[in-house]
Amino acid sequence: MKLCVIPGDGIGHEVVPVAVGVLQAVLPGLQLVFADAGWEEFCRNGKALPERTLVAARECGAVFFGAVSSPMQLVEGYRSPIVQLRRELGCHANIRPTLSLPLASSRSGIDLIIVRENTEDLYVGDEQSDGEVAVAIKRITRKASLRVARSAFELARNAGRQRITIIHKANILPRTDGLFRDCAREVAREFTDIAVDEMLVDTAALRLAQAPESFDMLLAPNLYGDILSDLAAAFGGGLGLAPSLNLGVAAAIAEPVHGSAPDIAGQGIANPLAAILSAAMLLRVWWQRPELALRIEQAVHATLLDGIATPDVMSPGVTTQHLARVVIERI
Amino acid sequence: MKLCVIPGDGIGHEVVPVAVGVLQAVLPGLQLVFADAGWEEFCRNGKALPERTLVAARECGAVFFGAVSSPMQLVEGYRSPIVQLRRELGCHANIRPTLSLPLASSRSGIDLIIVRENTEDLYVGDEQSDGEVAVAIKRITRKASLRVARSAFELARNAGRQRITIIHKANILPRTDGLFRDCAREVAREFTDIAVDEMLVDTAALRLAQAPESFDMLLAPNLYGDILSDLAAAFGGGLGLAPSLNLGVAAAIAEPVHGSAPDIAGQGIANPLAAILSAAMLLRVWWQRPELALRIEQAVHATLLDGIATPDVMSPGVTTQHLARVVIERI
Ligand SMILES: CC(C)[C@H](C(=O)O)[C@@H](O)C(=O)O
Ligand SMILES: CC(C)[C@H](C(=O)O)[C@@H](O)C(=O)O
Repeated sequence: MKLCVIPGDGIGHEVVPVAVGVLQAVLPGLQLVFADAGWEEFCRNGKALPERTLVAARECGAVFFGAVSSPMQLVEGYRSPIVQLRRELGCHANIRPTLSLPLASSRSGIDLIIVRENTEDLYVGDEQSDGEVAVAIKRITRKASLRVARSAFELARNAGRQRITIIHKANILPRTDGLFRDCAREVAREFTDIAVDEMLVDTAALRLAQAPESFDMLLAPNLYGDILSDLAAAFGGGLGLAPSLNLGVAAAIAEPVHGSAPDIAGQGIANPLAAILSAAMLLRVWWQRPELALRIEQAVHATLLDGIATPDVMSPGVTTQHLARVVIERI
Repeated sequence: MKLCVIPGDGIGHEVVPVAVGVLQAVLPGLQLVFADAGWEEFCRNGKALPERTLVAARECGAVFFGAVSSPMQLVEGYRSPIVQLRRELGCHANIRPTLSLPLASSRSGIDLIIVRENTEDLYVGDEQSDGEVAVAIKRITRKASLRVARSAFELARNAGRQRITIIHKANILPRTDGLFRDCAREVAREFTDIAVDEMLVDTAALRLAQAPESFDMLLAPNLYGDILSDLAAAFGGGLGLAPSLNLGVAAAIAEPVHGSAPDIAGQGIANPLAAILSAAMLLRVWWQRPELALRIEQAVHATLLDGIATPDVMSPGVTTQHLARVVIERI
C-alpha cells in the first residue's frame, strides 16, 4: 500500500506529518512517497505541480495533500496545483462532511455531507481580459454532472443517508446550472431509496446558517460547493476540523479544507485534526477500512470531549504535536 | 414626487401595499403609478417585464418592487424581470444592510452593509447548451466595477463607515475577479479615510457565519453578493427583515430581499418589515430624507422590542395587517 504525500505550503508541513503518522499507526505496512507542489515549489522551480509529483500521485493512487498558498494576483505560468491535481487524477467528487463536535464553536445536531463537483464549472481556467472587459467560462457538462451525481447517490446509499439536496442557481443559469440539476435528477431516478430535492444556492446559504441540522447531503457544482463547504465548516468547529476527500476511480486525495494559514505557519499550533479526519476518510472510502476510520474518529472525539485541542478551538490550547500524541495514544 | 409600484407575484401583493402605505404616511403628496411584472404577468401576456412597466419605472425614477416567482426550468422567452429592471434602469449598486434586531433569531452586534454589483457577472444571461456541454459567460468590466466601487465608497463615507472588504475568488479567477478587485482598490485610493481589505468569497462565507459582527461593509460581484447577502440575512432575523435598495443615477428600486414565498402567499402572514425597511432606504438614499427613514426604522425596532411580529420571527405571531398598523401608529 502506497501513499503519495504532498505537504505543500505553510501549515501543510505541520499537519501532514501528523496525519501520515496516524495512518502509519493503523496501517503499519504503508509506504510513503513524498512529493512537492505549491507556491514554494513554484518559486523554486517554476511549476506549482511538477510532472514528477503527478507521476508519483498517479502511481500511488492514494494521495495526501496538505495545503497551498495561492497568489491573489495573476502570476504568469501559475495554476493552482490542487485544482490541477483534482482534474489530472480524475477525482471528480469532492466529499466534505460537517459534523457537530463537542466544542463551543460547533453547533449541535449537524451531520451533513457536501458533495462538490470537482473538475469543471468556473474552475476550468478559461478566462480572458483586455483590461476593460474580462470574461470567464462557466462550463457544465452532462458527463461530469452525471458522474458526480452518481458518486453522491452511491455514497448516500453506502452511508445510509436519506436525502440529497441539489444546489444550483437555475433561475439565472437555466442552461448550465439547469443541466447540472437535470443530470442529478436523472441519476436520482435510479436511487428510489434516497429522497431528492433542490435549492437555490443563495437560499442554501441562508438555510445552512439558520438550520444546518436540516440538511443531510448536498450536491453542488464546483464553486457553490466551495463556498457552502467553507460556510458549513463554520458550524463544525471551523476550518481546523474540516476534512475532505477528493474521490475518483483511479485515485483519491485526502485534503484538509483549510489553506496554508501563513499567519500561524511555523508556530507549531496548527490544528492537525482536519488532516487526521481526512486520513480517516481515505481509510473509509478509498482503502475500504471503515473500522480503522472509526477508531481514528472516535479518538478525535474523545480527545475533544476531554477539552484537549489547539488554540483555534480551545483555550488554553495545546500544540500540534501535543494534540497529535494524545490522539494517537487513543487510537 | 412619484413612485412606480410593482407588487409582482405572491406575497409581493401583500407586503408592497403595506410599505407603500408607510411611505404615504410620511410623504403625503406621494403619487403612485402601479405597474405589472413577474411570472403571473408572463403567463398572462408573454412578457415578465412589459414595456409599459419599464416606461413607468423610468418616468418615476423611484420604484418599489415586491417579489417575483422565477421558474427553475428554462422557459422560452422568460427572463427574470428584476434582473432586467436593475440593468435597464441602470441601478448598478445593490445595497443590502444587515443589522442586529431585538429578536431571538438575530445575532447581536451586527451592523454590516453588502454592496453588490448589479448589472453583470453571471447575470448577463449569456448562456448556451447543446445538451451535452453548457457554458455561461461570467462578464466583469472595468466600467461597471469602478462604478459600483465608487458608489460603495461614497456610501461608506456618507454613512460614516470605517472599512470595506472586497470579495472575490481571484485565486481561481485572476482576470475577472482580479479585475473587479483591482478596480475597487483603484477607487479606494481616492478614499483614504476608508480602510480597505479583501477576502476570498469562501472565506467570507465562513467568516460571516463565525463572526458577522467583524464586518463593516462588503463589496462583491453580483453572484457572490447574492449568496452572501442571503447568508447575512440569516443573522438579522431572516429574509422577512432583509431590505435592499438598487441604486443608480437616474433611478432607485426598493426591494425586499425575500422572494414571492408561494408557500405562505394569500395567508395574510407575510412579514412586511423587509418591505417597510426597503421603503426607509428609498427615503434615506434616494429622496434624501434621512429623518423620515429614521422614524420608520425606529418604529420597526420599537415594535419588535414589544414582541410584535409575524410568525416567521415571533411566536405567537400577528398578521401582516396587524403588524403594519402597529408600525404605522408608531411612526
Ligand atoms: C485553494 C483553492 C483553489 C481551493 C478551491 O477553491 O477549491 C480551496 O478554497 C478549497 O476549497 O479547497
Ligand atoms: C430572484 C433572483 C433573480 C434574485 C437574484 O438572484 O438577484 C434574488 O435571489 C435576489 O437576491 O434578489
